[in-house]
Amino acid sequence: MPIREDITAWLQNLQSNICDALEAADGKAKFTREAWERPEGGGGLTRVIGDGNVIEKGGVNFSAVYGETPAFLLKEKEHALTQPSPAGEGNTTFYATGVSIVLHPQSPMVPIIHMNIRYFEMSNGVYWLGGGIDLTPHYVNEPDAKYFHQTLKTVCDKHHPTYYDEFKKWADDYFFIKHRNETRGVGGIFFDRLNSSEKMSFRKNLAFWKEVGESFAPLYVELMNRNKNLAYTETEKQWQLLRRGRYAEFNLVYDKGTKFGLETNGRIESILMSLPPLASWLYDFKPLPNSQEEKTLSLLKKGVEWA
Amino acid sequence: MPIREDITAWLQNLQSNICDALEAADGKAKFTREAWERPEGGGGLTRVIGDGNVIEKGGVNFSAVYGETPAFLLKEKEHALTQPSPAGEGNTTFYATGVSIVLHPQSPMVPIIHMNIRYFEMSNGVYWLGGGIDLTPHYVNEPDAKYFHQTLKTVCDKHHPTYYDEFKKWADDYFFIKHRNETRGVGGIFFDRLNSSEKMSFRKNLAFWKEVGESFAPLYVELMNRNKNLAYTETEKQWQLLRRGRYAEFNLVYDKGTKFGLETNGRIESILMSLPPLASWLYDFKPLPNSQEEKTLSLLKKGVEWA
Repeated sequence: MPIREDITAWLQNLQSNICDALEAADGKAKFTREAWERPEGGGGLTRVIGDGNVIEKGGVNFSAVYGETPAFLLKEKEHALTQPSPAGEGNTTFYATGVSIVLHPQSPMVPIIHMNIRYFEMSNGVYWLGGGIDLTPHYVNEPDAKYFHQTLKTVCDKHHPTYYDEFKKWADDYFFIKHRNETRGVGGIFFDRLNSSEKMSFRKNLAFWKEVGESFAPLYVELMNRNKNLAYTETEKQWQLLRRGRYAEFNLVYDKGTKFGLETNGRIESILMSLPPLASWLYDFKPLPNSQEEKTLSLLKKGVEWA
Repeated sequence: MPIREDITAWLQNLQSNICDALEAADGKAKFTREAWERPEGGGGLTRVIGDGNVIEKGGVNFSAVYGETPAFLLKEKEHALTQPSPAGEGNTTFYATGVSIVLHPQSPMVPIIHMNIRYFEMSNGVYWLGGGIDLTPHYVNEPDAKYFHQTLKTVCDKHHPTYYDEFKKWADDYFFIKHRNETRGVGGIFFDRLNSSEKMSFRKNLAFWKEVGESFAPLYVELMNRNKNLAYTETEKQWQLLRRGRYAEFNLVYDKGTKFGLETNGRIESILMSLPPLASWLYDFKPLPNSQEEKTLSLLKKGVEWA
């Protein structure tokens, strides 16, 4: 199928471009390059960065894996779109390719960012695009959050008038730490199972999806540049470690990409590169009244209209 | 039912005795005391300790919660022992009480320890005892691991000749970080759903279970005293932070007590007090050949005969 090869090559090129842009913006750190193979089929190229001027730890990972479709994928209720293979479940194979990014900055004034874009297909003829990009500021800075959402809205609006609203809500629901009753950060957009619908053809969705991927580097470089030279205190650094603890909680308890990786025997070090270099958990920490920390917590909720 | 009240009071007393013993051994830190209520029924007493001479962060928590039995408990395959309530699932209520302990020491030379003992009953007449105690040394010290296991074996042997072997194996299987293919530490014992069987009456199992609980304080105080004054390097402290990262992974991804708490709307700060005060994740860290770190990794596997 030409779609599969086109998308795979496009993702590899995107990974390379994003790494170049981030290296230039960091000014010190360089991405390593580690190719790996999955015993059951496929593999990837993991590119990690660390000890930079701006980025403390992060990765921009490409993978393309295939094999027998894991049973849990066929069973999941939310995979209702999945038609059973004519030859029965046992005969279904899958192909999944994507780029996943998480960047943990040195400074508590620079936000954590995440992006994932993926293409998934099965041998029963079902295929779709998915993706998401969300921002996790240690301190919510309103102009930055607005800029982030407005940029994503502009990308969405170019392709479909309802996509931003729909996918922004989906991100609010997805990047949510249920047991804390707080969102991971200020959200962004999240979407899955885009194929063709009354709204948009697959080709048009593919163009939208590519533009989401291409928006990542300029968007995060702008946020790095805005904040990287701000001074910060030891208290603010401590708060960063607590917020990173929440980030680890989300990824280990809820994140579907992480679960998918762990359950399909993915490469552990590539999957868990999203975890922070250093994180802290204090018992029952409560920010001071009227502090910036308290203000940030008050904004970590669903339904804030940033754009 | 008198059993329920007896066990609940006994657990509260155990919590108090363990806190006293740990405070005395630490010599500096004191446990706080925080009573909480669960909106759906019951509550607990959370006692946390921190910034001690030996203990950096830890908790000894008592809880006794009740209400409608959560659907996921009735559905779980491993709950095969559970007979359906005559009046149907909707009418089943549960009562669960226990003491849970996790202690993170300051020094990488002192092991992390965990214990949980619990009693569970349902309105359909099904009830059982469960528990576990396991040791997670940052550096596996063979005499300590042997002492730990020998002490548990002595407790088990007093009650039943096969319990140590059975429950040691169960701990190896339970305290296992599947995605890392390594055990959390050197294991210990783990058991669940003890009631009465051909082997032992419920009364006799209760006596065994109580003795497990009472063995905790002298056992850990001994391990504190053996190791608390050992010198350590910055490299060893770094390694401790990485091992704590693994501890967080186990608790957030696999631990059933944590999952039970999150899914039954338990008190989050009490459930997650098990998470380390500070933890680290480095990308693809490999210990040096023939180092103490490498030796420790080589011992984090199932089936090591320590006793």
